[in-house]
Amino acid sequence: MTVPTPDLTSRRSFLRKSAITAVALPTAASLLGACEGEAAKAAPAAKTAAAGSAGHGAHGTTTTSASATLSPAAKAAAMDEMHEKGVKSFPAKTAKWGNQPMKPKMDGKVKVFELTCTKMKWETEPGKFVDAMAYNEQVPGPQIRVTEGDRVRFVVTNKMDESTAMHYHGLEVPNDQDGVPFITQPVIKPGETFTYEFTVPNSGSHMYHSHHNAAMQTSSGLLGALIVDKKRPPKIEKVDIDYTMILNDGSHGFTLNGKSFPATEPIVAKLGQKLRIRFMNEGMQIHPMHLHGMHFTVIAKDGWDQPAPWKCDTLNIAPGERWDVIVNCNNPGTWAFHCHILSHAESPHGMFGMVTALIVQKPGVA
Amino acid sequence: MTVPTPDLTSRRSFLRKSAITAVALPTAASLLGACEGEAAKAAPAAKTAAAGSAGHGAHGTTTTSASATLSPAAKAAAMDEMHEKGVKSFPAKTAKWGNQPMKPKMDGKVKVFELTCTKMKWETEPGKFVDAMAYNEQVPGPQIRVTEGDRVRFVVTNKMDESTAMHYHGLEVPNDQDGVPFITQPVIKPGETFTYEFTVPNSGSHMYHSHHNAAMQTSSGLLGALIVDKKRPPKIEKVDIDYTMILNDGSHGFTLNGKSFPATEPIVAKLGQKLRIRFMNEGMQIHPMHLHGMHFTVIAKDGWDQPAPWKCDTLNIAPGERWDVIVNCNNPGTWAFHCHILSHAESPHGMFGMVTALIVQKPGVA
Amino acid sequence: MTVPTPDLTSRRSFLRKSAITAVALPTAASLLGACEGEAAKAAPAAKTAAAGSAGHGAHGTTTTSASATLSPAAKAAAMDEMHEKGVKSFPAKTAKWGNQPMKPKMDGKVKVFELTCTKMKWETEPGKFVDAMAYNEQVPGPQIRVTEGDRVRFVVTNKMDESTAMHYHGLEVPNDQDGVPFITQPVIKPGETFTYEFTVPNSGSHMYHSHHNAAMQTSSGLLGALIVDKKRPPKIEKVDIDYTMILNDGSHGFTLNGKSFPATEPIVAKLGQKLRIRFMNEGMQIHPMHLHGMHFTVIAKDGWDQPAPWKCDTLNIAPGERWDVIVNCNNPGTWAFHCHILSHAESPHGMFGMVTALIVQKPGVA
Repeated sequence: MTVPTPDLTSRRSFLRKSAITAVALPTAASLLGACEGEAAKAAPAAKTAAAGSAGHGAHGTTTTSASATLSPAAKAAAMDEMHEKGVKSFPAKTAKWGNQPMKPKMDGKVKVFELTCTKMKWETEPGKFVDAMAYNEQVPGPQIRVTEGDRVRFVVTNKMDESTAMHYHGLEVPNDQDGVPFITQPVIKPGETFTYEFTVPNSGSHMYHSHHNAAMQTSSGLLGALIVDKKRPPKIEKVDIDYTMILNDGSHGFTLNGKSFPATEPIVAKLGQKLRIRFMNEGMQIHPMHLHGMHFTVIAKDGWDQPAPWKCDTLNIAPGERWDVIVNCNNPGTWAFHCHILSHAESPHGMFGMVTALIVQKPGVA
Repeated sequence: MTVPTPDLTSRRSFLRKSAITAVALPTAASLLGACEGEAAKAAPAAKTAAAGSAGHGAHGTTTTSASATLSPAAKAAAMDEMHEKGVKSFPAKTAKWGNQPMKPKMDGKVKVFELTCTKMKWETEPGKFVDAMAYNEQVPGPQIRVTEGDRVRFVVTNKMDESTAMHYHGLEVPNDQDGVPFITQPVIKPGETFTYEFTVPNSGSHMYHSHHNAAMQTSSGLLGALIVDKKRPPKIEKVDIDYTMILNDGSHGFTLNGKSFPATEPIVAKLGQKLRIRFMNEGMQIHPMHLHGMHFTVIAKDGWDQPAPWKCDTLNIAPGERWDVIVNCNNPGTWAFHCHILSHAESPHGMFGMVTALIVQKPGVA
Repeated sequence: MTVPTPDLTSRRSFLRKSAITAVALPTAASLLGACEGEAAKAAPAAKTAAAGSAGHGAHGTTTTSASATLSPAAKAAAMDEMHEKGVKSFPAKTAKWGNQPMKPKMDGKVKVFELTCTKMKWETEPGKFVDAMAYNEQVPGPQIRVTEGDRVRFVVTNKMDESTAMHYHGLEVPNDQDGVPFITQPVIKPGETFTYEFTVPNSGSHMYHSHHNAAMQTSSGLLGALIVDKKRPPKIEKVDIDYTMILNDGSHGFTLNGKSFPATEPIVAKLGQKLRIRFMNEGMQIHPMHLHGMHFTVIAKDGWDQPAPWKCDTLNIAPGERWDVIVNCNNPGTWAFHCHILSHAESPHGMFGMVTALIVQKPGVA
């Protein structure tokens, strides 16, 4: 039995329409009344400084010269205002989402996935467009989900101006389908199409990505989730929400599924639901992901069941690793969820990068 | 039953008074006789060079120009002298210790912890004062120890010139006590006091720290251990010494409990004693901590028991993680205990940063 | 019973003589026919650019100015040519191998290992000579293999112009044999010899290395594998090939057993063989090692058996750690095997650094 993929789109549009501030942040909203008033009283100079450096593209830059003349209180208010502005804009709208479930075309019993590589601009947070390489114009590429034993075909067309190749990271495919140029195949040159076909040998949370000039191509977006369901998933894998979170940290900045806070996607669950998160690190640094309010039960590593589940609240995820965890959503509220290398998540300008939220909704909140 | 906190002060003063060189380093002391003689014979230029760069604040700086004219033998002797000087000065005296056990005030059945944030200078090693933000003028902040099910209140007063907030990292508190500005509460502005109160929900080795401008505030010292004892600790947790070691690596340099070698605190045990170490990483880098002479038995991660204890001698601790280990102190002597990223522990000027020692004393040594 | 050490030399010379291109890369060789033709058609300028920057010492340098004038297709072809050239030259010949099994001299029942430290030039890849410090002129030093309970003696002679000392990382030796200058012994000065002797207390994959000026000395080559067999190894440890892979990342670049791709050593197994890999990290960064085509079964950490074996395909190895894994070589072909921090393994100039291959040969291939 296949665990159904949740409809992310509807959850997202729900959040946008029915207002995260009203639904998910009632406490914050009411508490903030007072301090919003105070912030408004901050000197005009403070507001100017805040506005001048509030753009999230400005992280890591020096403070505007105006701030040098501010009083300590005005400086503190300006900093707080930037932090608040970031949080209030979450989840901020950007042009397009990656990691969207892809339906295969069927060729008899073969599931066919057609993937085209192009260079494009990708919006990681409002107004920040980065140079990307993408499969089907998504960063990460489309989420591919099959079942062990399926016959699959990947038709990869290269419309970029440099060669590429595709590797199935974690799948124990026959050698000539492994996607390593000059060892198992030639490169896929600009304009060419290469076809991979194999029977899916092992289940779990895997990835597909470029294996040519890969430090550049993978960090630029040529990557995606390749999830293989077990034919008979055990009870612990029967979940209400099955969420994949791909970490990256190259020229696009610190991203979760191709977006940086506040443009990251919140995970929304109802109280009592069981959530599975599939962490995948496609970057070049470790990211110890920390969830507030509830803990992880770790069930699998790189698609292989752990001998016994174990618990933690901060899970260190190294490049190339995948870790599957269960969260029992039993603590209502909006919970910060971020990389605990704090320089990947917060600057004096506010939270940025690898930050999102798990929103656990109480019954009756629709 | 609560495991008693060892009296660190008396252990420390014991070390100072009864002389680490006499008690803990008999082998080194006697062996060193010969080479001290040789070192003395090194050219005056060598001594000057050594003196000129022996200050631990000088790590990573270039060698003094005088050394350029030294013979290889004199250079080697000068380097050795710096190394020896560092070791011999351990444990070096600095102004103040952080991580000191804090007794709560009782308000009926509520344990009340009053914590005040200030900016101050903090001495990490002799003569090196860094800009710190501190709870109750300690870096790390006072060690707080309660039992699961306790009712606790944290009264946080901000006497700094920037806002802050306090997060209970690892505790599954109600959402409005989670300490994330603009999501669960407003910031605590300069001059304000904010009160948190909750029933302690889960046991283990946890942390409290700032969650506002946290990359800066936490690395500057707004952090502390928050240890929650089980109501009925299992046998494996009944130990003779229960030691917390907080790792940090920001603007204060590489520190263990707020101090850099040679000002770090040695752990002193008697032969046959059972030692628990609670590692907590509040920095932004991994630190694989390595103990010489004995191994760790890992029993818990982030406050949750591992399914089965497992052994190692080098434990990789990522930012935000806590790992609890047991050491059976069955190998007498003074054992180096350090981060195995060697650039966090040793330079050509000698050992520095994340280095301390576990001293296992033979019976009859008082 | 001691697991026999495979004869690495004969496997290597076999590879060189009987031609890796013919035996291990038949697929690549035949597939490449076509694209070699195409590459040849690339503009002469492209070939010049490729030749000008193909030297692996050039990784990280800027592209030659000639490439600025190339068409996109010629640029792509030039890049591909560099990648192909690197792969085709694997395993490239360099002057000398480290990590060679060392036979002890016997003094009665004492196994005596004589190790001499010198400074030398070490060839990490064809034509790239780095400044090294070495035991017996090998980087890593000779592989030492003993059995728990053995009486061993290490006679360390320092022929360098700076002092040193030797630590037995992971072995629970008596304190005065631990090798930490000024704590357990004096330094071994230039020209001096120091003798260590002890009964080997615990089994597993351990290391010996310098513990004086160690950030410099260990990363420069003063390190080696110290493998201790159990007196009665359990069934899971009875393997066909027992391979040690030491990771390093200092001034020598990213190396596996002292060599950088394409000069790294492939592991060659026959289909169906059982392979043990002992990962040891002597560097200052993590290295998540990823094997294509087959998974690891992790059996031990730092020489201690894990409570239960567990599986993965990407194993994060931190400085100072040792991890032992089993690979069942059941998938024939030449499989990429590399650090998954891609910047340690590939640049626009091709694969480099921490890359090797596991070659699984089908029956009948001799």
